[in-house]
Amino acid sequence: MNSEFDVIDRYFTRPRRNALLGPGDDAALIACKPGMDWAISVDTLVAGRHFFPDVDPATLGHKVLAVNLSDMAAMGATPCWATLSLTLTETLAQDDIWLKAFSSGFFALADQYQVELIGGDTTGGPLNISVQIIGEVERGKALRRSGAQPGDDIWVSGHLGDAALALQSLQQHVTLTAQEAAPCLAALHTPMPRVALGKALVNVAHSAIDISDGLLADLGHILDRSGVAATIDFDHIPRSPALKNKLQPENTVTNTICQLAIDCLLAGGDDYELCFTVPESKRDAVIQLAQESGILLSRIGKIIPGKGLTVLGTDSNPLIFKNKGYDHFSAR
Amino acid sequence: MNSEFDVIDRYFTRPRRNALLGPGDDAALIACKPGMDWAISVDTLVAGRHFFPDVDPATLGHKVLAVNLSDMAAMGATPCWATLSLTLTETLAQDDIWLKAFSSGFFALADQYQVELIGGDTTGGPLNISVQIIGEVERGKALRRSGAQPGDDIWVSGHLGDAALALQSLQQHVTLTAQEAAPCLAALHTPMPRVALGKALVNVAHSAIDISDGLLADLGHILDRSGVAATIDFDHIPRSPALKNKLQPENTVTNTICQLAIDCLLAGGDDYELCFTVPESKRDAVIQLAQESGILLSRIGKIIPGKGLTVLGTDSNPLIFKNKGYDHFSAR
Repeated sequence: MNSEFDVIDRYFTRPRRNALLGPGDDAALIACKPGMDWAISVDTLVAGRHFFPDVDPATLGHKVLAVNLSDMAAMGATPCWATLSLTLTETLAQDDIWLKAFSSGFFALADQYQVELIGGDTTGGPLNISVQIIGEVERGKALRRSGAQPGDDIWVSGHLGDAALALQSLQQHVTLTAQEAAPCLAALHTPMPRVALGKALVNVAHSAIDISDGLLADLGHILDRSGVAATIDFDHIPRSPALKNKLQPENTVTNTICQLAIDCLLAGGDDYELCFTVPESKRDAVIQLAQESGILLSRIGKIIPGKGLTVLGTDSNPLIFKNKGYDHFSAR
Repeated sequence: MNSEFDVIDRYFTRPRRNALLGPGDDAALIACKPGMDWAISVDTLVAGRHFFPDVDPATLGHKVLAVNLSDMAAMGATPCWATLSLTLTETLAQDDIWLKAFSSGFFALADQYQVELIGGDTTGGPLNISVQIIGEVERGKALRRSGAQPGDDIWVSGHLGDAALALQSLQQHVTLTAQEAAPCLAALHTPMPRVALGKALVNVAHSAIDISDGLLADLGHILDRSGVAATIDFDHIPRSPALKNKLQPENTVTNTICQLAIDCLLAGGDDYELCFTVPESKRDAVIQLAQESGILLSRIGKIIPGKGLTVLGTDSNPLIFKNKGYDHFSAR
């Protein structure tokens, strides 16, 4: 079975030539004007796979740009320019209300980050939206997946698993109260990319990635690229009140809802939070950054020598998980 | 009815900010290192719309890059970097033979132009392939659609209409001999972008576009953007022997096959030849360029003041046409 990562590795990765960094990170890097590199990335959302076809078009316009801005955040880059490839069904191509809402959502977020849409292509077919983004970062300063070192603390921003929990609730696998649902649905539909945080982590973090396919999978990419291992403490993984409720003691490990919540937290997609590693010597800088930015930053584990990722439970014994992340070829 | 051009104009075009050139040309332009601009473009091919789902994957890999290189050619830019967004069905994602052939076709052409694939995204869904390309061009020298001036000669490269004729034959609307079919099928499946020609036209042409949606539509874009009109001579539009055969005198204007051939020539998509305008004073430079490059360059008409595009027949009377080009929201 090819996963999406296999397809890239097997068929579309070759030794780099002029680029500073090729496929395999959150973005590619190429040298541009003196002292600056450009980070370039592309991310695609497919109807029925990444979003429900009847999703609010304004939030869809927001999200397709947000997931790309999140890649810039993970590189510590300032997003500047975007192109848009929009494949529309015949119905949507004639739906001015849908198009207006979609473009409004897109541009509202673009304006917030002063990102300019410089071009695009519109085609007919099953709904498919691809955004390419270009950002700037100081020469040699981009945050790569490959920089983690033994001894680094592992940090994540925000809460994990809320978007995945919202999806489970939309699919009626779990019931959320109105109060629980609101922040989870916001996390799913209108994620806010951590661009300012990413930029602040330049000169602080050794490595970074954005969590789009679940913590285990994405931290796994850092470990693979850096040639290191990690342990993380399950209890330290930041979770919202909604997710916490589903992990209550009365929901034992054999309880389906509890299992589902654990999966959301560790392997749910669509978080768009940053996972990054920082040497212990800079721990205070991260704590200060959290205070200044108002963003929750949680220290969840440690980079160690070796290979593999271990999640320690409350009793410090390793937990064993079935799901390792979200693979885009597996239908939801 | 929204056409694909309306969608871009209405919903996704805003005043440019930092870019030198935004949506509406073959590529956007942004300033990069001193003295150089970057041309950036994206083009998407959709299964069942731009190609048959059972097309040879190697030619598909070639073509999806070729159509993007053609945009660089139309800007006079040297293509450098590409990203690939590949949405694959579950069947194709597991089809190693297909993937290997597709990537071989893609890289064979990439190598020919020393284009580096620097990143991409693979997702699951109905087959949809989007390539983003970045090229370099000397500051201020890019060939735009907006530079045509009254008095300019209008030129096109190669033969027009062969790819469209091949499509008509695959759809069994017309019969081609084996000898006629071969070059037409090659034009459809493995177009060769006119990159060297585009670069040679810098400092020579006032404007340029690549013909992807048919001569009338694409020359029409030059006229719109430049605020000028044009007359072209039907008899001067370059055509292959195969297409010439279908336009024989015995096929009168009321003959279906003859009409179809005229449509292919004037409004067939997928030519990927260049249409460009050059001041009369540089006519000899174009003739010399044709001789040196071995590329057929045909002078087909004249830019004039005003608005509109007139095609003159053999008797110098204007011809009237139904089809103005290929709109991607209209199924083939």
